[in-house]
Amino acid sequence: MAGRYISDLGQHEHMWTHPVNFSTFDEFETGIILSEALPFIQKFRGKTIVVKYGGAAMKSEALQASVIADIVLLACVGLRIVFVHGGGPEINQWLGRLNIQPNFLNGLRVTDASTMEIVSMVLVGKVNKHLVALINKAGATAVGLSGIDGRLLIARPSPNSSQLGFVGDIASVDPTIIRPLIDNNHIPVIASVAADLNGQPYNINADTAAGELAAALGAEKLILLTDVAGILENREDPGSLVKQIDIKGVKKMIEDGKVAGGMIPKVSCCIRSLAQGVRTTSIIDGRLKHSLLLEILTDEGAGTMITG
Amino acid sequence: MAGRYISDLGQHEHMWTHPVNFSTFDEFETGIILSEALPFIQKFRGKTIVVKYGGAAMKSEALQASVIADIVLLACVGLRIVFVHGGGPEINQWLGRLNIQPNFLNGLRVTDASTMEIVSMVLVGKVNKHLVALINKAGATAVGLSGIDGRLLIARPSPNSSQLGFVGDIASVDPTIIRPLIDNNHIPVIASVAADLNGQPYNINADTAAGELAAALGAEKLILLTDVAGILENREDPGSLVKQIDIKGVKKMIEDGKVAGGMIPKVSCCIRSLAQGVRTTSIIDGRLKHSLLLEILTDEGAGTMITG
Amino acid sequence: MAGRYISDLGQHEHMWTHPVNFSTFDEFETGIILSEALPFIQKFRGKTIVVKYGGAAMKSEALQASVIADIVLLACVGLRIVFVHGGGPEINQWLGRLNIQPNFLNGLRVTDASTMEIVSMVLVGKVNKHLVALINKAGATAVGLSGIDGRLLIARPSPNSSQLGFVGDIASVDPTIIRPLIDNNHIPVIASVAADLNGQPYNINADTAAGELAAALGAEKLILLTDVAGILENREDPGSLVKQIDIKGVKKMIEDGKVAGGMIPKVSCCIRSLAQGVRTTSIIDGRLKHSLLLEILTDEGAGTMITG
Amino acid sequence: MAGRYISDLGQHEHMWTHPVNFSTFDEFETGIILSEALPFIQKFRGKTIVVKYGGAAMKSEALQASVIADIVLLACVGLRIVFVHGGGPEINQWLGRLNIQPNFLNGLRVTDASTMEIVSMVLVGKVNKHLVALINKAGATAVGLSGIDGRLLIARPSPNSSQLGFVGDIASVDPTIIRPLIDNNHIPVIASVAADLNGQPYNINADTAAGELAAALGAEKLILLTDVAGILENREDPGSLVKQIDIKGVKKMIEDGKVAGGMIPKVSCCIRSLAQGVRTTSIIDGRLKHSLLLEILTDEGAGTMITG
Amino acid sequence: MAGRYISDLGQHEHMWTHPVNFSTFDEFETGIILSEALPFIQKFRGKTIVVKYGGAAMKSEALQASVIADIVLLACVGLRIVFVHGGGPEINQWLGRLNIQPNFLNGLRVTDASTMEIVSMVLVGKVNKHLVALINKAGATAVGLSGIDGRLLIARPSPNSSQLGFVGDIASVDPTIIRPLIDNNHIPVIASVAADLNGQPYNINADTAAGELAAALGAEKLILLTDVAGILENREDPGSLVKQIDIKGVKKMIEDGKVAGGMIPKVSCCIRSLAQGVRTTSIIDGRLKHSLLLEILTDEGAGTMITG
Amino acid sequence: MAGRYISDLGQHEHMWTHPVNFSTFDEFETGIILSEALPFIQKFRGKTIVVKYGGAAMKSEALQASVIADIVLLACVGLRIVFVHGGGPEINQWLGRLNIQPNFLNGLRVTDASTMEIVSMVLVGKVNKHLVALINKAGATAVGLSGIDGRLLIARPSPNSSQLGFVGDIASVDPTIIRPLIDNNHIPVIASVAADLNGQPYNINADTAAGELAAALGAEKLILLTDVAGILENREDPGSLVKQIDIKGVKKMIEDGKVAGGMIPKVSCCIRSLAQGVRTTSIIDGRLKHSLLLEILTDEGAGTMITG
Repeated sequence: MAGRYISDLGQHEHMWTHPVNFSTFDEFETGIILSEALPFIQKFRGKTIVVKYGGAAMKSEALQASVIADIVLLACVGLRIVFVHGGGPEINQWLGRLNIQPNFLNGLRVTDASTMEIVSMVLVGKVNKHLVALINKAGATAVGLSGIDGRLLIARPSPNSSQLGFVGDIASVDPTIIRPLIDNNHIPVIASVAADLNGQPYNINADTAAGELAAALGAEKLILLTDVAGILENREDPGSLVKQIDIKGVKKMIEDGKVAGGMIPKVSCCIRSLAQGVRTTSIIDGRLKHSLLLEILTDEGAGTMITG
Repeated sequence: MAGRYISDLGQHEHMWTHPVNFSTFDEFETGIILSEALPFIQKFRGKTIVVKYGGAAMKSEALQASVIADIVLLACVGLRIVFVHGGGPEINQWLGRLNIQPNFLNGLRVTDASTMEIVSMVLVGKVNKHLVALINKAGATAVGLSGIDGRLLIARPSPNSSQLGFVGDIASVDPTIIRPLIDNNHIPVIASVAADLNGQPYNINADTAAGELAAALGAEKLILLTDVAGILENREDPGSLVKQIDIKGVKKMIEDGKVAGGMIPKVSCCIRSLAQGVRTTSIIDGRLKHSLLLEILTDEGAGTMITG
Repeated sequence: MAGRYISDLGQHEHMWTHPVNFSTFDEFETGIILSEALPFIQKFRGKTIVVKYGGAAMKSEALQASVIADIVLLACVGLRIVFVHGGGPEINQWLGRLNIQPNFLNGLRVTDASTMEIVSMVLVGKVNKHLVALINKAGATAVGLSGIDGRLLIARPSPNSSQLGFVGDIASVDPTIIRPLIDNNHIPVIASVAADLNGQPYNINADTAAGELAAALGAEKLILLTDVAGILENREDPGSLVKQIDIKGVKKMIEDGKVAGGMIPKVSCCIRSLAQGVRTTSIIDGRLKHSLLLEILTDEGAGTMITG
Repeated sequence: MAGRYISDLGQHEHMWTHPVNFSTFDEFETGIILSEALPFIQKFRGKTIVVKYGGAAMKSEALQASVIADIVLLACVGLRIVFVHGGGPEINQWLGRLNIQPNFLNGLRVTDASTMEIVSMVLVGKVNKHLVALINKAGATAVGLSGIDGRLLIARPSPNSSQLGFVGDIASVDPTIIRPLIDNNHIPVIASVAADLNGQPYNINADTAAGELAAALGAEKLILLTDVAGILENREDPGSLVKQIDIKGVKKMIEDGKVAGGMIPKVSCCIRSLAQGVRTTSIIDGRLKHSLLLEILTDEGAGTMITG
Repeated sequence: MAGRYISDLGQHEHMWTHPVNFSTFDEFETGIILSEALPFIQKFRGKTIVVKYGGAAMKSEALQASVIADIVLLACVGLRIVFVHGGGPEINQWLGRLNIQPNFLNGLRVTDASTMEIVSMVLVGKVNKHLVALINKAGATAVGLSGIDGRLLIARPSPNSSQLGFVGDIASVDPTIIRPLIDNNHIPVIASVAADLNGQPYNINADTAAGELAAALGAEKLILLTDVAGILENREDPGSLVKQIDIKGVKKMIEDGKVAGGMIPKVSCCIRSLAQGVRTTSIIDGRLKHSLLLEILTDEGAGTMITG
Repeated sequence: MAGRYISDLGQHEHMWTHPVNFSTFDEFETGIILSEALPFIQKFRGKTIVVKYGGAAMKSEALQASVIADIVLLACVGLRIVFVHGGGPEINQWLGRLNIQPNFLNGLRVTDASTMEIVSMVLVGKVNKHLVALINKAGATAVGLSGIDGRLLIARPSPNSSQLGFVGDIASVDPTIIRPLIDNNHIPVIASVAADLNGQPYNINADTAAGELAAALGAEKLILLTDVAGILENREDPGSLVKQIDIKGVKKMIEDGKVAGGMIPKVSCCIRSLAQGVRTTSIIDGRLKHSLLLEILTDEGAGTMITG
């Protein structure tokens, strides 16, 4: 006899009005057992988790599907997910299609006005809406926003903007428009673009945007999806992953040169969030399928947790 | 390195203030995968499920632990559980200890005043509080009640009470005190004892109590835990389980003699609940571990679902 | 011509859905005049009053009827009553019926596991439900609870538990489940039994339970119904009742030996409540009919009021 | 020893912030016993009672004190009192002092512009504020209003206004400003003056104003304080009081001439209120002390109750 | 073709249930342009503005019409207006009509009991209701109150009351009854009469009443309508208007004798309000049409703004 | 002396946290007088107005500034504005820059996948965010959304999509995410792009989107900004503007051929909105500066109002 509920799964009158698309989870190899996840679900229900999405997890369709499935599941069991993203490789591709020559200064891209125009169109008009549509299709309800909307983020030129163009820092955060969304179990999907007080758009570092939002929302957790395994005690030894460390410890690792390069701004972002009251922050491995679930719903985790 | 969260799991400020006791789930053999359960969690979040607990699942400690684990898990992922129980074998044991001679009429026990006194003490003062303590220990928050409290159930003598003594029917249901509990994610645990308008306690059939409560609460689902596999097309053939049937179908099975004996009052109870607006009812196999989870979170189910 | 309202008195749609049973008040000899009670009703409307019920007032049916009538009346004119009770003589009677030999150590009863089982059954399953039924019959709405329900009280072994068995202290109070009840004009009736974190039930001193609940609820008043007239200046002289005294004064009386014996723990309980913010506490004479009304609704009072 | 509470009675932080003045009740001869009043308090708690005050009860200071004491007591035990008054003899006295010659037409006073000016000043600026001050002094909180305020009553000229001047009918009622007052346990005291759409004040019959307000508020009860015992079966026989009658019965009494003269408009006012949903109406004897309490809190009553 | 909306303007179901009377604005010569007023409307929307009305603006009908039009407009665009008034010349006129001889002491009127009676009748029963009717007619909703109502203002004898009679100071302010009115976009119109705890009415200075109300309401702005241009740097030079000054500056002007005479109590009233948290206060020229609008909705203002 | 408020205008703690930029209104030639606008502000305060923005008003910067100024002003005086826009000429320009050849069928553009990608990026990522930034800069708070966000609009292929590509009809509207925004005085700015149930984006006609949103929101008014004066009685005679017409009348004009061509779908859109409960609809002249203000705040209007 055929399944009894299947035909009925589209009829949720309450809160979750759309069924999860089953195929979304076809490749869900982690197989977290419900009962094992229970204590973590209990711990995080009703808590706000800000996830910065980018890097490899954005480039691979399979990894993207896994991230989308994870946040839908987490929202479904009662967590308040805020999803912040950058642009990934699509920006370069569109700049190429429009024959806008990349202009670099000391290895950093110069974001002139016409580049900024493309950045905004791609991030807000394409990537953001694609992510919103994927989440909606998977059964949760997403609302795409940028920092411009509701003055969520006000930008100011970063100190090196005279050289690098419209690269901005965050002058202020106003999460007013986010709260009713997460209170309604909606998932805000936020493109890291913001305007200054004159309405000029700026490109904002997505890690920074996620960290400042987590602080302004009093989040339980900030999670940065990256292309590394986490913080390694010995960068040569992939088996030397530091699973948990506090601010003091990680500052020592920076002094000792063990944390270096591109990891430093990510760690700094975590430290700033912790200093503003976020309870824990994690730098996790976005190259792993379902690393978000592993980080939140298992004791093992999927990278390095930095605590205050 | 030891688990990162374990030491922290007791610190839920929000809603779930006590950690699930891990050992509760040690024997959780069903191993329902979180992602597979997701569509069902979505479907039932925020919905009220009334569970009638009794029979074998009450007699075996292992089965009891499995039922407790299941309802804690279901409450934790957002379902509103109302847990109704009868007395099980403890009543007989205490009657024996007190040398109260069982008195039977046509095979039915006569509940005289002194028997009723024991029934109430055992159901309300022992079984109920034991279940509440088990649920609390497992990490959810239970509140034990009887039909007397808040006039939840008003009893009246059943037609045959002149012969059988203080065996009552339900004259009215007032679920006022239940709603704030389930709105707060608490689990009401209800002993099937009620008083009439003069304050005289009566023993109430627990299936009936569960069914009337489900109707008064506008529940999504009524589940009766029983000592059989469900409704069988052929009572001789355990493989002939009817997984889903509607009112018309099951009435036909009664007419045809396929549903008979002790199953008839259970089916009738389901039909009355459906007629009063409960969306689905299930008669499931309480002899199976985690049959509640199987019934609610899988398409397979754990018995027979009767629909309107 | 017959009374105009009588036939109509059952039709309260609002809040008070059941008529007061007139006979309840037949023996209401105090005859407090409505207009004289008015300033006190004004003073206490909407305030929380925790009443510890026990002793003689529990043993005599007439006194019990008077206490029930009083709390129904007080709830009806707008006070928020929380009613805490111990077990009275019924526990001994049931222990006798079950041939459980009382075991005493230095004059204190040893509560072993089988004694505790009976204590819980009698307090929660019999006394509590009887009180609930009496209040309901008198026209108010009572909800019976124990300290186990909703983790209202968490117990821990008292220092002398190694000798005395399951006699517990109160480790914590969580009045979450009480507030919606008293906000709805319901009367919580609380049996002084609680479980520890492992679910093991303990017998809790009912005075202590009432005092800690009063503190946790920020009550206006804690009233202990006792078998004495109150605190006497001269224990030989029943006319030397101290009507009002402050903490400093009553501590001096203990030093001077004027307050002694079983009165000391009651006074200490009052002092602890006052120290935690309860506004006034009273030790009143439960042997007097309607002493609760006299204490709350007259300036004369019915015992000794201790203030901060 | 002196009273314990007296010095404390001024300290009600909650709702009732001012003590009842004890002397107000000195002459409270009715002596309604609190316990006897209880079922009626239960019945009417939270219900809206509109009282029309006038006649003898307004002229005698002792009767006025008794009425004020009654409504303060009724508000204190939880009824929602709306107090509507006319002008009494003060209007004539002030017209006299200002040498405004009364002008009569067929025995009815002509309310010209200068008369209307005095009517408004006396009713609103003197009688109303005096009543408000008396209620406030007695410990409740009154708010004085006229039909002009918040467009509570909109007037239109009555059919005979061309001859009688500014005598108005009620064109519409908007009780918006009354509800937050009675929800806060305040007592609205309403002078029966209203303006038309052009702002011209009119004198409104106070019985009519009370009746229309009762209807607009969905009141439980409309009580008209009058100078008669109620409706008599035989106008010659004071012992023939009709305690309760329905609309049909009272219409018959009008046809039969048993109800006649000034009683007819009062009865008609009751009938209109009943037709608009007021549950019961009473015409009571304002010459009796505490007739309001007798009517509301005893089965005996203090006049004639007309029901729908 | 005739106007499309005109016939429809009476049909506001929401909040503003009555159309503005067009003719009210006929003489609106200031012609403030909507777009110019916008930043000020933005600034003051939802803020509480207490306006003291008296003097010339009360004597001239044209000025009165202009003030009424202004407050209706201000309430309509979202400001919360509280309107406090004294008595103007009407009191003298009525004292004359009643042959009550004015009695002066050192140039100050003695308010004996019979004078106070007239003051209350005129202020509360005539002036107040006239203002309420004018505002209602102009399309907003006014509610007339005195300090007696809801114990809004409690009076105490002023130090010189033994000589001057019933002239009172303000002992306390309880704005409970004002808040629901202004939250509903109603305009409270308050006559400056209050009673002491015994119910004795007193005449209260209207500037003082307005200032204390502004403080108790946490108002954004207190505006005193006066018969002067504001504070002049040089009293001989009308062109020397001080447009803005802080407390320190205005205290210096008093010391220097530049602020003197009747201006001193008005300035003191402003200083007291500022000290209690009112953000700005203004002394404006009530002889100018629409000075209220000019003060609130233009940068120019209409007098002197004193800031903290 | 310099302006008193200017320096202070940035300090709105309440609701309007950003000052209007004064220069925005420099060219505000209509000069609507505040007092003349008052009755219309009264009429529309708190009402929802859906504005479809497009055409000439989008192409000219001066007209765009005028529209932005108008909606900021309207929101500021309390109207709930929902702003729906299409793409204007920017889409073509970007298609050109990307060398995507326009493909026409019977004069209609074929929206293939790569065209749709550009449409979405331009509408959502560029035009929408530009409008949001302009409104924010002008002092109100805008939130940019598309039909994809929160499943605001679900698309389905339009009947001719097989030929025309991703041109969609509206299958359903869910305004859940709009309500908290307009309740908070935010201005939703909505790009007319929506996804079907599979997440595929479609281009939606902006008039249709505005009309369906107005219906779903129960709007007071739908306003379509167009490039014509409104409906003309005689298309040759610009002076023959029909200021107001009902559904029956305008259907007759279609039959008579007086309404033809591109005006027919606009009129049909209005009729559908009216049929679903929108109170009035207007087709106004977007080529006029401040036509929105003229339409809403004057009796003259700025085009044709169609009523039900």
